[in-house]
Amino acid sequence: MALFSNNAFVCGMLLIFIVPQPGNAQRQPSNIISPEVLPDNSVIFRVKAPNANTAQVSGTWATGKMMAMEKRDSVFEVKVGPLVSDMYEYDIILDGIPILDPTNNMVTRDGAWIQNRLIVPGAMADVIDVKPVPHGDIKAAWYNSPTISGAQRRMFIYTPPGYDKSNKQYPVLYLLHGGGGDEEGWLSRGRANYMIDNLIASGKAVPMIVVITNGNPNTPAAPLDRPAEMQNKIPGGIGSMASGKFEESLVKDVMPYIESHYRTINDADHRAITGFSMGGFQTQNITNANPAMFKYIGVMSMGLFSSFGNNPNPDYNKDQHVAQLKALIAASPKVYWIGIGKSDFLYGTVVKLRALYDEVGLKYTYRENEGTHDWNSWRLYLSEFAPLCFK
Amino acid sequence: MALFSNNAFVCGMLLIFIVPQPGNAQRQPSNIISPEVLPDNSVIFRVKAPNANTAQVSGTWATGKMMAMEKRDSVFEVKVGPLVSDMYEYDIILDGIPILDPTNNMVTRDGAWIQNRLIVPGAMADVIDVKPVPHGDIKAAWYNSPTISGAQRRMFIYTPPGYDKSNKQYPVLYLLHGGGGDEEGWLSRGRANYMIDNLIASGKAVPMIVVITNGNPNTPAAPLDRPAEMQNKIPGGIGSMASGKFEESLVKDVMPYIESHYRTINDADHRAITGFSMGGFQTQNITNANPAMFKYIGVMSMGLFSSFGNNPNPDYNKDQHVAQLKALIAASPKVYWIGIGKSDFLYGTVVKLRALYDEVGLKYTYRENEGTHDWNSWRLYLSEFAPLCFK
Repeated sequence: MALFSNNAFVCGMLLIFIVPQPGNAQRQPSNIISPEVLPDNSVIFRVKAPNANTAQVSGTWATGKMMAMEKRDSVFEVKVGPLVSDMYEYDIILDGIPILDPTNNMVTRDGAWIQNRLIVPGAMADVIDVKPVPHGDIKAAWYNSPTISGAQRRMFIYTPPGYDKSNKQYPVLYLLHGGGGDEEGWLSRGRANYMIDNLIASGKAVPMIVVITNGNPNTPAAPLDRPAEMQNKIPGGIGSMASGKFEESLVKDVMPYIESHYRTINDADHRAITGFSMGGFQTQNITNANPAMFKYIGVMSMGLFSSFGNNPNPDYNKDQHVAQLKALIAASPKVYWIGIGKSDFLYGTVVKLRALYDEVGLKYTYRENEGTHDWNSWRLYLSEFAPLCFK
Repeated sequence: MALFSNNAFVCGMLLIFIVPQPGNAQRQPSNIISPEVLPDNSVIFRVKAPNANTAQVSGTWATGKMMAMEKRDSVFEVKVGPLVSDMYEYDIILDGIPILDPTNNMVTRDGAWIQNRLIVPGAMADVIDVKPVPHGDIKAAWYNSPTISGAQRRMFIYTPPGYDKSNKQYPVLYLLHGGGGDEEGWLSRGRANYMIDNLIASGKAVPMIVVITNGNPNTPAAPLDRPAEMQNKIPGGIGSMASGKFEESLVKDVMPYIESHYRTINDADHRAITGFSMGGFQTQNITNANPAMFKYIGVMSMGLFSSFGNNPNPDYNKDQHVAQLKALIAASPKVYWIGIGKSDFLYGTVVKLRALYDEVGLKYTYRENEGTHDWNSWRLYLSEFAPLCFK
């Protein structure tokens, strides 16, 4: 293609192709760099906003805290950290309005939270980064759900490196999201596919299929993949969560689809399930109601649902719950894993869940971290739970 | 799941699961609704910004124009339209800074452009919406590219409804993006999968596989799917575009992968290729260099590369180009389609391309629309080109 090797031509192309794109909000570095990660993992955030009076940055390295930015000429700036290696989401708040960092094109979404992303190098980054190892593929698949709506719903299926060209059968991990989220969360914020790639490559986890569902009965898919008539509506997924419909559909609709479309090993020894928050609640419901279905169970950031404040579930029936747990004990799960952050607002519910499990005699692995109810915890938990599965 | 049917419990869950998510920027309707589409397809945009002095909205219904918003109490508001049915991207500009609409969770990305989305109901919405028809699946697949980097690169493969459970072989459409974009553009903004779903369901297009590549030799994938060391860097894909490396890799790396991993019909009658802007340039290069490979060729919003201003390509060799076009004519493409908007800044290059094709005797179908160099044109073109393929 010698026709196109001329530098003047390249410069001409640069001007021609970059300038006239629609919109005026191209988010990339200019003379302003933000975020800038320094060698010691401190991070400088900058935003050029000549007309603004105040600017702050708020990120998941200190959830709920606002860091004031200082204005010099027309640029606000603040240095935070050094930060522990991890992935963080953040907002810049300009005169009280949260905005995306105008120079950062790394943006993730979880439900209606759309925020900038930053990866700080080091140990945890190495767990979740796109590394030069074989990558699994991800399919966005639509399946029929007679149980929920009679209509199609969307899920993601990760197949491990080499799946397409092997004849092997694989175990399956079902991965559930939290309230307010959807099926894109474990990819956009959870980095589940790259984490599993890295765990497989290092021999820490066995090759597995990972199924990531949408746990909101009222919506078939993430926002951009819903009908336009549902655009920008609050899905109401949390309210409908208590219907138990998603739990039922996982068993009746999702699993038969997976086990008839993929080369799976269809027994309890080769099925795992985990989820956080609402997904931890659904994980409990599914495995309590189907004790012989999964040998690997992970409950993240979620405890005993009867222990929420002011008794929100007066219908809770402890005898029924205990009977389910005894059936689960009889089915001998190989791993029952519970993870909770010391600062998680649901910490107390996990204390009560553990007390009940101790009372009933259900053995579990307990993991307590310094974190709170956020993706930093859930990524950590998955990186520890996945290696325990199918061994 | 009678345990969870109590309303008080549901309310408790609502509070518990929604409140403590990380970040403070949940983008969904509150007492402020924006955008609000009125019955006549006028649209009201609103933003609550008590401290701001000015607010404007800028959208692809009138690219490059700013509509001033009027402040009443603390809420800025403007009504635009009525708008023609279509999908539009827009920014709100607050005191000169482009921000996402704080109450709209519909956000699309194309390269470094991250903007809110709005679908206005009617004819074009029906072409691109998620309709109650069978949906194809999309796989994000990593393939080896010895030609470009020796490393893995990512592409998307759409398989039509029923693919997994049939034994049929299918034709393949290769779909290329523009400069500054990446492999997510045709999905996030192009709505290619839902468009093809709808065209197949209505019988307007035949079931086909659609392959959506990343045309930037310098980056293996979209921003969040690159190694963290490449986070928030300008990829420089445009400059490297002139190397011809992507064109070569499509033929040497992508097509062999597709034809060995999918049930494809491997002859020119069952291969189509189209792309816009940079992708239109690459489409020309690929089909000029491989005249017998594709019988269906679509060049969108791109003309003769020697006709850019101030002769940016002094190495252009007309004799060589004409020889390639004569080989293409000899190979008898069934459809050679050219689309350009009357307001496209590249309109003049298409005039020159057509003049050359007329001179040489290459027959083509010419489509001129009222539009400009944007996704509204490219969606329209795909909706017209795809039905012409494989018939």
